[in-house]
Amino acid sequence: MADIVTFGEAMIRLSPPQFRRLEQISSLDVHVGGAELNTAVALAQLGRASAWVSCLTDNPLGRLIRNRAREAGVETRHVAWTNEHRVGLYFVEFGAAPRASSVVYDRKDSAIAMVQPGTFDWAEIFRGARWFHVTGITPALSPQAAVVTREAVEAARTAGLRVSIDLNYRQKLWTTAEAGRCLRPLLSFCDVLITTEEDAEKVLGVTAPDHEGLAQCLVRELSVDTVAITVRDNPLVWRNRWTALACRRDQVYRACSYEVEIVDRLGAGDSFAAGLIDGLLDDDLARGMETGVALSALKHSIPGDFAWVSRSEVESLRRGGNLRISR
Amino acid sequence: MADIVTFGEAMIRLSPPQFRRLEQISSLDVHVGGAELNTAVALAQLGRASAWVSCLTDNPLGRLIRNRAREAGVETRHVAWTNEHRVGLYFVEFGAAPRASSVVYDRKDSAIAMVQPGTFDWAEIFRGARWFHVTGITPALSPQAAVVTREAVEAARTAGLRVSIDLNYRQKLWTTAEAGRCLRPLLSFCDVLITTEEDAEKVLGVTAPDHEGLAQCLVRELSVDTVAITVRDNPLVWRNRWTALACRRDQVYRACSYEVEIVDRLGAGDSFAAGLIDGLLDDDLARGMETGVALSALKHSIPGDFAWVSRSEVESLRRGGNLRISR
Amino acid sequence: MADIVTFGEAMIRLSPPQFRRLEQISSLDVHVGGAELNTAVALAQLGRASAWVSCLTDNPLGRLIRNRAREAGVETRHVAWTNEHRVGLYFVEFGAAPRASSVVYDRKDSAIAMVQPGTFDWAEIFRGARWFHVTGITPALSPQAAVVTREAVEAARTAGLRVSIDLNYRQKLWTTAEAGRCLRPLLSFCDVLITTEEDAEKVLGVTAPDHEGLAQCLVRELSVDTVAITVRDNPLVWRNRWTALACRRDQVYRACSYEVEIVDRLGAGDSFAAGLIDGLLDDDLARGMETGVALSALKHSIPGDFAWVSRSEVESLRRGGNLRISR
Amino acid sequence: MADIVTFGEAMIRLSPPQFRRLEQISSLDVHVGGAELNTAVALAQLGRASAWVSCLTDNPLGRLIRNRAREAGVETRHVAWTNEHRVGLYFVEFGAAPRASSVVYDRKDSAIAMVQPGTFDWAEIFRGARWFHVTGITPALSPQAAVVTREAVEAARTAGLRVSIDLNYRQKLWTTAEAGRCLRPLLSFCDVLITTEEDAEKVLGVTAPDHEGLAQCLVRELSVDTVAITVRDNPLVWRNRWTALACRRDQVYRACSYEVEIVDRLGAGDSFAAGLIDGLLDDDLARGMETGVALSALKHSIPGDFAWVSRSEVESLRRGGNLRISR
Amino acid sequence: MADIVTFGEAMIRLSPPQFRRLEQISSLDVHVGGAELNTAVALAQLGRASAWVSCLTDNPLGRLIRNRAREAGVETRHVAWTNEHRVGLYFVEFGAAPRASSVVYDRKDSAIAMVQPGTFDWAEIFRGARWFHVTGITPALSPQAAVVTREAVEAARTAGLRVSIDLNYRQKLWTTAEAGRCLRPLLSFCDVLITTEEDAEKVLGVTAPDHEGLAQCLVRELSVDTVAITVRDNPLVWRNRWTALACRRDQVYRACSYEVEIVDRLGAGDSFAAGLIDGLLDDDLARGMETGVALSALKHSIPGDFAWVSRSEVESLRRGGNLRISR
Amino acid sequence: MADIVTFGEAMIRLSPPQFRRLEQISSLDVHVGGAELNTAVALAQLGRASAWVSCLTDNPLGRLIRNRAREAGVETRHVAWTNEHRVGLYFVEFGAAPRASSVVYDRKDSAIAMVQPGTFDWAEIFRGARWFHVTGITPALSPQAAVVTREAVEAARTAGLRVSIDLNYRQKLWTTAEAGRCLRPLLSFCDVLITTEEDAEKVLGVTAPDHEGLAQCLVRELSVDTVAITVRDNPLVWRNRWTALACRRDQVYRACSYEVEIVDRLGAGDSFAAGLIDGLLDDDLARGMETGVALSALKHSIPGDFAWVSRSEVESLRRGGNLRISR
Repeated sequence: MADIVTFGEAMIRLSPPQFRRLEQISSLDVHVGGAELNTAVALAQLGRASAWVSCLTDNPLGRLIRNRAREAGVETRHVAWTNEHRVGLYFVEFGAAPRASSVVYDRKDSAIAMVQPGTFDWAEIFRGARWFHVTGITPALSPQAAVVTREAVEAARTAGLRVSIDLNYRQKLWTTAEAGRCLRPLLSFCDVLITTEEDAEKVLGVTAPDHEGLAQCLVRELSVDTVAITVRDNPLVWRNRWTALACRRDQVYRACSYEVEIVDRLGAGDSFAAGLIDGLLDDDLARGMETGVALSALKHSIPGDFAWVSRSEVESLRRGGNLRISR
Repeated sequence: MADIVTFGEAMIRLSPPQFRRLEQISSLDVHVGGAELNTAVALAQLGRASAWVSCLTDNPLGRLIRNRAREAGVETRHVAWTNEHRVGLYFVEFGAAPRASSVVYDRKDSAIAMVQPGTFDWAEIFRGARWFHVTGITPALSPQAAVVTREAVEAARTAGLRVSIDLNYRQKLWTTAEAGRCLRPLLSFCDVLITTEEDAEKVLGVTAPDHEGLAQCLVRELSVDTVAITVRDNPLVWRNRWTALACRRDQVYRACSYEVEIVDRLGAGDSFAAGLIDGLLDDDLARGMETGVALSALKHSIPGDFAWVSRSEVESLRRGGNLRISR
Repeated sequence: MADIVTFGEAMIRLSPPQFRRLEQISSLDVHVGGAELNTAVALAQLGRASAWVSCLTDNPLGRLIRNRAREAGVETRHVAWTNEHRVGLYFVEFGAAPRASSVVYDRKDSAIAMVQPGTFDWAEIFRGARWFHVTGITPALSPQAAVVTREAVEAARTAGLRVSIDLNYRQKLWTTAEAGRCLRPLLSFCDVLITTEEDAEKVLGVTAPDHEGLAQCLVRELSVDTVAITVRDNPLVWRNRWTALACRRDQVYRACSYEVEIVDRLGAGDSFAAGLIDGLLDDDLARGMETGVALSALKHSIPGDFAWVSRSEVESLRRGGNLRISR
Repeated sequence: MADIVTFGEAMIRLSPPQFRRLEQISSLDVHVGGAELNTAVALAQLGRASAWVSCLTDNPLGRLIRNRAREAGVETRHVAWTNEHRVGLYFVEFGAAPRASSVVYDRKDSAIAMVQPGTFDWAEIFRGARWFHVTGITPALSPQAAVVTREAVEAARTAGLRVSIDLNYRQKLWTTAEAGRCLRPLLSFCDVLITTEEDAEKVLGVTAPDHEGLAQCLVRELSVDTVAITVRDNPLVWRNRWTALACRRDQVYRACSYEVEIVDRLGAGDSFAAGLIDGLLDDDLARGMETGVALSALKHSIPGDFAWVSRSEVESLRRGGNLRISR
Repeated sequence: MADIVTFGEAMIRLSPPQFRRLEQISSLDVHVGGAELNTAVALAQLGRASAWVSCLTDNPLGRLIRNRAREAGVETRHVAWTNEHRVGLYFVEFGAAPRASSVVYDRKDSAIAMVQPGTFDWAEIFRGARWFHVTGITPALSPQAAVVTREAVEAARTAGLRVSIDLNYRQKLWTTAEAGRCLRPLLSFCDVLITTEEDAEKVLGVTAPDHEGLAQCLVRELSVDTVAITVRDNPLVWRNRWTALACRRDQVYRACSYEVEIVDRLGAGDSFAAGLIDGLLDDDLARGMETGVALSALKHSIPGDFAWVSRSEVESLRRGGNLRISR
Repeated sequence: MADIVTFGEAMIRLSPPQFRRLEQISSLDVHVGGAELNTAVALAQLGRASAWVSCLTDNPLGRLIRNRAREAGVETRHVAWTNEHRVGLYFVEFGAAPRASSVVYDRKDSAIAMVQPGTFDWAEIFRGARWFHVTGITPALSPQAAVVTREAVEAARTAGLRVSIDLNYRQKLWTTAEAGRCLRPLLSFCDVLITTEEDAEKVLGVTAPDHEGLAQCLVRELSVDTVAITVRDNPLVWRNRWTALACRRDQVYRACSYEVEIVDRLGAGDSFAAGLIDGLLDDDLARGMETGVALSALKHSIPGDFAWVSRSEVESLRRGGNLRISR
């Protein structure tokens, strides 16, 4: 029985090796990823019991996603299987300054985008759980997916779970106006909002002179318990500075900042959410913020969307890890 | 200006290396393929001026397909570009006895399946050409694609081109009844029909006690000039026996038979069509049959859908090649 | 809760790609395998609830093995973790006639070889289960491992499970005399014995003029319910003929025989055991034998020790699969 | 019919993967490259009609080069084929500070080095074209190649094309004295000279206190219309600063400067030439300089010699691209 | 101090992976090979002290060849180093029936082809050695190489070494007439001739109704002590039958015959020579023939030109190895 | 006959490609490494005659290590072979900030750890040699290995060789107290001590306010002739600053400092030792320090433990190499 439940799409991710462009490929590296699955994986790696809910096509590609989720320790028995629709794919080109990395989605009409309201027995799924997490990507997939996301957050609240939402605005899926119209109502069921400054402005129209002010403003305006903002400084593609800050009621918490050498930054934000939830499950915002930032800083060094990082590695970094080879 | 024009879908083909199953992948080999493009490529490799007509999405995946077609020497200026729809994909698992190779298609709603009638100026496309080739896959993609296929064969006849159709029944795209209803009328515009015994029975309901009888029966019943039947004897996955025979009016032509060690049999039938067309362009059925069978026998030894085989290699095999290393 | 429990070592398997010899390597392919885990995986792929019991080192290599087991659907919560000992490895060189494939073991002092009696709470582990499976490899690992194997089979009998043992003699682990002294007593707790003709002679000293006679003789002599013998005819390395027969009381059952093109035959015998157990769980020896042989024939075509084969694929082959590409 | 014609050698480029030294290889990555072909490719990617003229051996290696050129959209019908001579090769070791990348050429006696004067019908080749581009490498290949280069630039001028020359001094091919004696006369047929400060000093003996002064000095001394100087600041191997400036009559144009993370800098200078020519074809030096620098900055991020960069990507960078992932 | 000295060219061998054609490559596998080096390597693997004499370019490619020779246990201190000339290369396309494997040489003007007479101090090189081996490839490289080969065989005879020559006719290097004129005189210094039926006819014009007769005829006509003929039956590319027979004075010796599954047959003949020499060093023709055939049969299963086979593996096969996995 | 003899373990090194974590592997890159072998290799690449003494298992893994040593030019005839024990392995995960690279050792009970005193005839091994080098890893392997290390340093002194010891403290092998107790007595036979500041403090309990003071203090306290201290400044994983300083009697020598982009830093310290020994063999401490630092700076750019760097490359860097591509 899972402590944390997440809900969303996972896709097969195809990326050219060694910085090749897609027009140059003779092979593609394969990973599995999706924002809410990534968060569930990171929580499982920390030792938490996490479950991921989704729809998958009953073919080798759908099974591949399910298998990789359970390889990483995530409970998958609530996945709904279908023979009707396809498995979503996305292609990632890794860049180098001044060429940013970029994503080509091929996720239209995927099984979860075609989900029918009522597919999931949320009361059953949430029995015994303490936390529900979803991102703004799930309702962006289709009108049906938005309805089912609404079902989920309402049911989570009803069942007494705490709810976190990561805004995660995706311009390739919907407009900022559509996102705002859909996500604002969901936030009324939400305890914890995770966002970036840019998404807060685009989706919620909220701005402030600095990150701290923004977080305070969001807490007030949205009536959520906690707002966390991740902050990336990326003058280059291979090297960024990464941190986060949070506001809970009047209190502002600023986490450490890490210089990161970037192998693969996809999924970093999702593992931040995992660390934050991990702390909040024990009602420790400070630990959640530090775990979230350290875990997601480490994620940048790992290929694929999943954070293959143990709790002891996070703690070792938080205690002030050095960069010597351990031997 | 092309001598031969073909029309159909090409997809990005993704296959696990080294006989892995899809659930085992950490990478995928990438090729480009599609029946009519394969035939155009094989003709280009023989030195013929061939053009391929299709719809492609204007993104890196669509450009990849166009690029690989022109790498192989095929004219691609008649391709229609769109921003609306996706690029078709298919996944191939290579097998070993008793596990057959298998294909998972992900080609729904591709650019060519969503083609609009009137997209192509066939009269302009066929100017100066002598031959048009299409397979039963193109009209199977969607009702619109069937309409445009009909446009094409009619326009080809009007423009004085000879027309060949390879039945190529695909059970994952339509039923035999649908295929029959659609393809039978097309055959009335057709000079050369290529098929297997199995497809002839499934799609056209024609059977005969032997291949020769079948070919004769098809010529009579369909009033086509020439019927060619490819014959595969596959007791194993890695080794087959491969040949073909043809009937033109009363005359039956039996080609050589080859023992083939199989690296990749996808596209073999399409390169047979290329060899046959190559001979028929010079009104030499015997040479066409021998070229077709030799070329497609060689294709079995080459990874990917394309027949990277020169005319001199085909002729060397036809003269009785041996299997010593040439050095 | 698992229906079937297996117990034994799993190792990290390192094999040179493309038939290289170990002295030629610049990289190694990595798989996870071990006889009893392989059987649990094959059962999970058939849809059975299977659990695997073992000892693993709490380091990335130990976790890798656990992860790959759960990726394939096997329950791993009974694994005992240790910081003391190492993870076993083995190196496989794939051959081609006249060079046989060969294995270099590096499994000495592994966590499971160093297992302490009393480590496992077998009564708890077996609660709700119906079948226990082990092979002759587990007790060969060390005297302690032999003691714990004895614990397991006794506890299984006590708990009312049926017990199957695959002799699996390994000359690199012990002598035939040692194997006989250890395994004979275990067989008295055993319902189903799986062996080859060669192992029966070496370990049990039982011979007969033919396979049928041998099976009958073993049933009588060992007082086991069922004896199954797998039969491999291997004139070449890349192509074998593979079948099995079984004797239950007076009845002899001969399964189909398959011509197999061999990608990787490691784990084939283990997946035969899975198919047999699958049938016997429903008291259907005939179906068990046919499932076992078909499943293990398919296993030969799949890289790695695991049988990534679904029940529907087994049934499709049993109904008389052909070797055409399904598309 | 091409707008731009380039003339020179292309080779098969062999490079050890992952920073291996040549003494460590078990495989080599394969690309195709050559200064003038690289420029033609970059122009084709921008949407220009470009053609490349060269000599190639009629074997699989020569065809490989031709195929890859046409894959990238370059017209190759003027290539002269021969059975006599070899295809040039070069080996690249990629370095990391303090080890510079290095090149081992194996291009002696290649087909184009052995070219015979009169091989090409330049008047025919240049019909309808507006620009001819060549580098100082082509005449360095052999005395015959120098003669044919002279033929080409004279014919280009006669046919009314504008002519650009990139000095591209290669110390492994000739001395600075030889280069100067050969290239100075060619420059009298030249409208646009591209060089680095270092090559200008070595080949032409021209120095100045700064890049601006050098460009002005070269315009005056050589009586060319435009001189462009590329400027690389490379304190490290994996990260450089890259820009260029140009002088036309009295006017000096300084382009933007880019911080580049370097995947593969080979061909960067050639793609700068392409961008510059692209602007000058529309008589827009400023746009040419900015396109050239942006395009070549992007080239540093792409494996192989070719700039797989579209015009819209160049424009997006020029408008101030950021390094976030586009999704 | 070496027992056996061989003399000839070694090249860098570049082959497309997985049966790709050269026009399809994005990478090339790298091996080192050359007939006489291959023989020296196989002898070293058997435990003999062997040395290889050649000329190499003092660059990373030349050092690569030297390094790989000494990795395999061959003495390389007599190699002559030069800065003048290139390292020979060859490209191998691996085939599948009906496409034979094929070789594209790029070895012209290599260091050893440009060798100067007098380069080697043969008396010094042969001090303490007992056997000299060379093939018909070395004198085919250039007139100078032919002169130096003559130097070597004469010096070997003078120094009391036994001399073996493998005819190894290469049609891409010279005509049969040229080969005959050059090799016939060398054979007068030769104790052991190794050939195939085909080469004997082409180079020496000797034919006979069967292999036995041919060997006897060659012994008589050429006055050599021993003639060995290797016999390949290759109905397919992936599977051959391989044996050899020898005639010494009146005695004919027929070796075992092996069914071989072929990973890479290049170098097989060279390892046969090694096995034969190994036996003859102990004056045991029978053992030499059986060692030669077994060793070279095993070589077919190993990628690259070198026979990574130990004496114990050869002996195990000769005692009647089976094809079970050893574990 | 070797000038320099080194003694220690070499292992097979297995590392996930492309920054993967061990739990993500489907393949492993293979190298051979070990501190003293690495030093012998670097000396051989500089042109010195070096020999490496060790124990190896007589199986393909042991032979692989021997082969790779002789590939790199190291004399291996003093290696003692055994059938009893295993070959040591280690796994390396390459990191990116803030994740340090890390090593998992699997070297327990390796052949050299199980070495018996008296195994080596040191007097014979040292005949004609001038230098003996060992590190603190060898005695850490086991008590026996410590005894044999003591044998070796004593014998080296007796035979008149100079002796260098690199402290190389490994916390995964022993405690600092154990290391101190074992290594202090060995240092009394030692001419040259190589260490880092951190190891000097941990093992010898010696600290000083700066590197210079530390070196002077160590020279005084230990009565060794020369102490060299390597200094790494590693704010990031992919980029460090690297230098060294030495103290000999009163004289302090500070070497150049290099900014290094890091491909693989394993073995860097060992190649520093090689450069230092190279200079000291000619009694030139300054040249030894500069060679050591330059060589080891270059080593950071090369995959694997071995420094594939020639003397001319070291000298070119010392003369002030630039980072342009040499072509």
